[in-house]
Amino acid sequence: MNSMEIELLGRHNRLVKEIKRLSQSAIRDERGRFLVEGRRVVQELALSQVEVEELLLGESLLQAEGEPPWLEGLWRRQPELRVWMVADSVLESLSNTATSQGFLAVARRPTLELAQFLKAKRLLVLSQIQDPGNVGTLLRSGLALGIEGALLCGGADPYNPKVVRAAAGAVFHLPLYRFREEELASWSRRLEAEGFTILTAEAHGGRSLIGIEPPRSWALVLGAEVKGVDSAWQSQAHWPLHIPLAPQSESLNVAAAGAIIMYELARAGATRGGVES
Amino acid sequence: MNSMEIELLGRHNRLVKEIKRLSQSAIRDERGRFLVEGRRVVQELALSQVEVEELLLGESLLQAEGEPPWLEGLWRRQPELRVWMVADSVLESLSNTATSQGFLAVARRPTLELAQFLKAKRLLVLSQIQDPGNVGTLLRSGLALGIEGALLCGGADPYNPKVVRAAAGAVFHLPLYRFREEELASWSRRLEAEGFTILTAEAHGGRSLIGIEPPRSWALVLGAEVKGVDSAWQSQAHWPLHIPLAPQSESLNVAAAGAIIMYELARAGATRGGVES
Repeated sequence: MNSMEIELLGRHNRLVKEIKRLSQSAIRDERGRFLVEGRRVVQELALSQVEVEELLLGESLLQAEGEPPWLEGLWRRQPELRVWMVADSVLESLSNTATSQGFLAVARRPTLELAQFLKAKRLLVLSQIQDPGNVGTLLRSGLALGIEGALLCGGADPYNPKVVRAAAGAVFHLPLYRFREEELASWSRRLEAEGFTILTAEAHGGRSLIGIEPPRSWALVLGAEVKGVDSAWQSQAHWPLHIPLAPQSESLNVAAAGAIIMYELARAGATRGGVES
Repeated sequence: MNSMEIELLGRHNRLVKEIKRLSQSAIRDERGRFLVEGRRVVQELALSQVEVEELLLGESLLQAEGEPPWLEGLWRRQPELRVWMVADSVLESLSNTATSQGFLAVARRPTLELAQFLKAKRLLVLSQIQDPGNVGTLLRSGLALGIEGALLCGGADPYNPKVVRAAAGAVFHLPLYRFREEELASWSRRLEAEGFTILTAEAHGGRSLIGIEPPRSWALVLGAEVKGVDSAWQSQAHWPLHIPLAPQSESLNVAAAGAIIMYELARAGATRGGVES
């Protein structure tokens, strides 16, 4: 194991303060770093290609279970990584989710080649979705259902610790690009110019999802929880879609609707010889 | 409007205390009542057939907007209903969700005829699902996608205020029946005896959801977030189902998986001449 050993984080208060700051979106942007919290998602991080900058493990977790089984592999990938044992109370004071479960990491944001991104055939666009749980769940569903990248306009920051946790590892695998609300109209035109058909999820109206033949390249736009998809997405290459619902029902949660639409696009695409397992 | 007027809730501390108690599951069971919080879901309650026992409206909400537009209709349905204006601080102290948005009600649980319930063709079974947001979202999706009733075993109480809010009105329309974990095996046998095929959602293995022909009567069982469906559901009339996922992905969130499976069952059922709009 060479010099790789777990150090005690005691008087290194600078690091604790720096980690606290990463719960702010502006600081995350400036530093190009983000927080990852929770047993499962820290494990997903360790097994991904994303660079880990710091790893903090809770004292009672280490006493009860010893080193996590993936730590050796992570050190092989990043021999310089410093791993800290932290008092449980310090770890919980740093946690932005209900509990860190003894696992907290600082990771470096992957850099993104926009040109590469636009070569995709299946993009997810989250337009002003506020709830971190919804954003995270949609990224997780997107990765599982064949999405190649996600564009996010306004709404919750995809590197918000709550989003990272709900995404269950999807932020380590999916290329993500965030733009400001003022850029919405220009992004809509750009996707159209790049050959994407803009699919929008609507509560009512438009085509029924059932029986749809997916276009060759598409960007599925999901809108804010209450007010729906911004009118700037109604470009010329625009297909409004709705999921047929029972008469008593008003609407679906946006993460449920997104999962259904991505599933149907994958299923219908596979039926006519596209990708599927 | 007769004597129907909004009263000031000031010294009626007995009511405030009683409402506070309703955040406990055991008290809700004992009283047969539950709390409903938030603008949208209180409106859904007012427009449903569920009996409203108390309605509390926030002071600044009433000052800014006046009486809610649905209040007259609710009073027509329930002329005896008492409606209270409450200081915002009192209302927020009673709220179990992030904010009540100025709307809080006490409602009476609908009574359920179990025999009626078992005449359904499409049931949802939530087996030990802990997260209130997941339970609420699944009930909301279920109502929208043609489910006729839900059985809940362990996990979050469907009358937990967070579940009620996430369900966006579905608890007022869907027949719900809750049973204890000890009764799991007997409920599994009972559903089978009543002619239901038990569909279980699995992370891997079993039949692919794509291409499935739904049986005539089915009960879809979704299991706990991490450990999955309890083995007691693996009866003789049991179809394990999985959603084909991209290789990088571990699994879907249970509410996303449930939405996809219910959608596919409705879609495939409709294709061979079942129900759909």
